[in-house]
Amino acid sequence: MTIVTDCPLCREDGGQLIVRSERFRVIRATGPDANDFPGFYRVVWNDHVAEWTDLVPADRSALMQAVAKVETVMRQCLQPTKVNLASLGNVVPHLHWHVVARYDWDSRYPAPLWAPATRAHDDTRLATLRDQLVACDAAIAALTF
Amino acid sequence: MTIVTDCPLCREDGGQLIVRSERFRVIRATGPDANDFPGFYRVVWNDHVAEWTDLVPADRSALMQAVAKVETVMRQCLQPTKVNLASLGNVVPHLHWHVVARYDWDSRYPAPLWAPATRAHDDTRLATLRDQLVACDAAIAALTF
Repeated sequence: MTIVTDCPLCREDGGQLIVRSERFRVIRATGPDANDFPGFYRVVWNDHVAEWTDLVPADRSALMQAVAKVETVMRQCLQPTKVNLASLGNVVPHLHWHVVARYDWDSRYPAPLWAPATRAHDDTRLATLRDQLVACDAAIAALTF
Repeated sequence: MTIVTDCPLCREDGGQLIVRSERFRVIRATGPDANDFPGFYRVVWNDHVAEWTDLVPADRSALMQAVAKVETVMRQCLQPTKVNLASLGNVVPHLHWHVVARYDWDSRYPAPLWAPATRAHDDTRLATLRDQLVACDAAIAALTF
């Protein structure tokens, strides 16, 4: 396994660790990323590779099956308006998939979460969503990969 | 097959059609989306479904294998700094994957392509990239799915 010492996803989990398998882990985003989007999980490949197509097909498929399981649990627990999936890695080129619950009331909807905010925080709805994360975290932690 | 009359991806291809299979098609983005990011392809599911996990696992896997093939060709033909993958669908909730060649000189790098521009257009490099699209389009059109 390649460890890159200046890579934050080699050094640390990258958020609240929910479950870890041999090849990847699921974390929930914390810090600024979670302010507007509490239902924000990431599936992080443990080894340091940059591109999804750097993986052999079996690993690529296993990773996407994990993303699908996380998305399915999120849809059940958080009932988002839409799920957003992305693998960007421009800033941290260590393969990770963003899996984000979006709502028609969130600060950027329907724009991508990286667009400028167009709407104020809805603190009441955000608090309700944060309450739902406990069950969502538990359901993701119970997944088998 | 479900056709939603007010859905732009049910009514039209959604860009320059490169190749079509029974279940999905590959288009290259045209119009404003392509101004800053000429190497911008989409794999669009032909049927109108909103979420990736609305597909049965075999279809989901077939779609991602197509995304992987497109990404692989783009890496070979366009040599991007990073490939960005995303399935958002907040505005057009008809399943499609963005596959975008990003460069360390592009107008938003390393921010997501949906973030505000932080750098001027590099017209010379953009023109060179546009020239490379002919071969990239042809290589994607030659893929078998």
